[in-house]
Amino acid sequence: MPQYTIIGADAAGLSAAVQIKRTHPGASIRILNKGADISYGACGIPFVIGGNIEEIESLIHFTPDSFEKKRGMTVDVEKEVIELSPSSKELSIKDLRSGAVEKESFTNLLIATGAEPKRLPFLDYESEGVFCVHTIPDLRGIITYIERKRSQRAAVIGAGFIGLELCEALTRRGMQVTVLEALDSPIAAWPKTAKTAVMNEMTKRSVQFFLRTFVSDVQKTQQIFRLQTDERTLEADVIFSVVGTIPAVSFCGSQFDKLPNGALLVDTQGRTSVPDIYAAGDCVGVKHLLTGKPVYMPLGSTANKMGRIAGMNMAGKNVTFPGIVGTQIFKFFDLSLAKTGFSREEAEQEGWDAAAVSVTTPDRAGYYPGASPVRMEITFEKDSHRLLGALVVCRENAARFIDPAAVALTGRMTLEDLAWLDAAYTPPFAPVWNALMRAAFKGLNP
Amino acid sequence: MPQYTIIGADAAGLSAAVQIKRTHPGASIRILNKGADISYGACGIPFVIGGNIEEIESLIHFTPDSFEKKRGMTVDVEKEVIELSPSSKELSIKDLRSGAVEKESFTNLLIATGAEPKRLPFLDYESEGVFCVHTIPDLRGIITYIERKRSQRAAVIGAGFIGLELCEALTRRGMQVTVLEALDSPIAAWPKTAKTAVMNEMTKRSVQFFLRTFVSDVQKTQQIFRLQTDERTLEADVIFSVVGTIPAVSFCGSQFDKLPNGALLVDTQGRTSVPDIYAAGDCVGVKHLLTGKPVYMPLGSTANKMGRIAGMNMAGKNVTFPGIVGTQIFKFFDLSLAKTGFSREEAEQEGWDAAAVSVTTPDRAGYYPGASPVRMEITFEKDSHRLLGALVVCRENAARFIDPAAVALTGRMTLEDLAWLDAAYTPPFAPVWNALMRAAFKGLNP
Repeated sequence: MPQYTIIGADAAGLSAAVQIKRTHPGASIRILNKGADISYGACGIPFVIGGNIEEIESLIHFTPDSFEKKRGMTVDVEKEVIELSPSSKELSIKDLRSGAVEKESFTNLLIATGAEPKRLPFLDYESEGVFCVHTIPDLRGIITYIERKRSQRAAVIGAGFIGLELCEALTRRGMQVTVLEALDSPIAAWPKTAKTAVMNEMTKRSVQFFLRTFVSDVQKTQQIFRLQTDERTLEADVIFSVVGTIPAVSFCGSQFDKLPNGALLVDTQGRTSVPDIYAAGDCVGVKHLLTGKPVYMPLGSTANKMGRIAGMNMAGKNVTFPGIVGTQIFKFFDLSLAKTGFSREEAEQEGWDAAAVSVTTPDRAGYYPGASPVRMEITFEKDSHRLLGALVVCRENAARFIDPAAVALTGRMTLEDLAWLDAAYTPPFAPVWNALMRAAFKGLNP
Repeated sequence: MPQYTIIGADAAGLSAAVQIKRTHPGASIRILNKGADISYGACGIPFVIGGNIEEIESLIHFTPDSFEKKRGMTVDVEKEVIELSPSSKELSIKDLRSGAVEKESFTNLLIATGAEPKRLPFLDYESEGVFCVHTIPDLRGIITYIERKRSQRAAVIGAGFIGLELCEALTRRGMQVTVLEALDSPIAAWPKTAKTAVMNEMTKRSVQFFLRTFVSDVQKTQQIFRLQTDERTLEADVIFSVVGTIPAVSFCGSQFDKLPNGALLVDTQGRTSVPDIYAAGDCVGVKHLLTGKPVYMPLGSTANKMGRIAGMNMAGKNVTFPGIVGTQIFKFFDLSLAKTGFSREEAEQEGWDAAAVSVTTPDRAGYYPGASPVRMEITFEKDSHRLLGALVVCRENAARFIDPAAVALTGRMTLEDLAWLDAAYTPPFAPVWNALMRAAFKGLNP
């Protein structure tokens, strides 16, 4: 009977477990998880803070109990793998309740330990009122703290899209939010149009933001934090640190091929460079479909897919991940922003002779009530007209406009395919020439 | 200086004119139009009747005056072409105000006369209170009539999607609507899931509907119509006839290659079978990208595209229309329905060994407030897994889900491409596995 060990019981790990079980109902599947909570929608955390979602429990798809009942597999929680020996095929597992460490051998292993928040040297993360925004315990701590202390002033360090979602959430709670960002803009990896839209929205919503701002020191007196930057001292009742994540693979040692940030390299079937060891989720680098090169872009959606694929292949199937195209989306107050593929600058860095065009066009028939403008920028290869990327800034739901572009990238399609696309048209839902078509046409007829 | 004549000043004709003018600013462009109104969004008519759009004028993109001002071209309105002689390159043009007929020669011609409503033999279309729903004068007549007469009971003959849009519009106005359909379901060309959803919605909205119902006679006494069917007599204050359209090409004679319904056949650049004569819009058959065969599917979106393409090619460019994939969408009360490509039955009729699967899945993270179910059915070729079609029934905006499928059809993509799609994911806007991905995965893993 095949034997499997899975480290990590979230999106990637449990997706794999379910696929293995589906193929081999009698398999022995051992699932270890460092935390007490498993299988939760971490992407929903800001929306609980903001009150869009009422119950923390809504984010939890499965408890260990309900997973066992529904899927017939046990998850051993609060078990941290602290060492992995590929040669002896052994794990050192620490019981976080008792502190005891035991060794255990494995046959087929999946590493699905995810990522952990980057930490800033000047912040004491043990201090009450300093939070990361990554786990269910983080979320419980945040809600309890800001409710009990009636926190009014929040400092959010980091203006990536999680930082921005958090910023909206805290504003919705009536808090005064100050965003501090070391780089010279929010969402640094996004094109300028998106950055400008975000900054205007912050201003409109009375969110303070300081760019190119480094915190040198944080002092806390009487529950008030004082953040010292080059130019000023800022007071805050609560501090959130949202400055990105790093792969949680410190136990893996040096025998794995990795990306510079430590993410494990896997092939398109989820195999690491070490035999019988697969990896999936926020601890791995995945193939970018447009370049063929591995990139680190940790997202719940990709973790789910790679987990499913790793599980299917571990179970003996032969399934290949085509690669990501770099699709991202987030909501920021009344804005919806999404991108996929590359901006012109990124495409040029990757060696393409690229051009970009942009259009602004209504999201439905211009005469239909509620029509609102959609800004779309597309990048394409000059000679072949192959689409290389798209950016959308709109109000309703940018997925509506970015998903067709993501499909087109996956299909290696050209502007000719898109300019004349037989897209949905009806006045309440879509215009004759939607943003993607119009941008493609403009690219072809400058 | 190149000379062009265009018959018809709506989506196709004016799109062509604009493209010709763009390439040859000095060209002589003669534009004739049978009606007094040009360039209007006919697809918006039901939404004016329903009061979603307040002003009839909102639908009019250009009047002849504003078009002349903006585009520098004159439209000669109320001029009907009653005969076309390809050999002598002459048109007989009737002035609808004076009744005079004059001959006029042309060099390069575009036929963009659109379609006209099919007429039912038992209806007197000259009778006050009997309406087609096709033109701005129709719309003006309808609004005036039902407001002046305070019409309460409407009979809508025909349950295609225009009939259904009208049904919603009249219901919104507080009228009691009865829909009569000769076939055994509404939207006969749609899959069963869509038909069932529509019928349930009609019931929920207290719309009466009679299927397999033929009207044999209509009498009018004291402004009340009595419609006689096999089984009953129905009373109505106003009657709408929405039973499809036929190409408006009676003036064309027999020298053109045509589809059985009379639609002019054109190549992918808009050329008819007669030299120097192009055609575009609701009077032509267009290539279906999946079969390569011409089909008659008159839609404003396709008319715009084919007009633009014909104009560009008439002006000397070399632009090819890839073909339609049969995308349609409409709103019906709280439902949004869309399809693209083929159902399994249609695909089999076209010679594919096809299979179909369906899923129902939330439109955003299931835990996010407002999440509502999306029903998606997809058709694919069994061996190659090539996508052949999709159907969506949902509440919010089916374009969001059908457009990616339309792109995938255009790119001849497979279920493997779609199951692992790097689609947008964020709790407020999209789930980890969206409906298309989930359907593709189910197709691959039945």
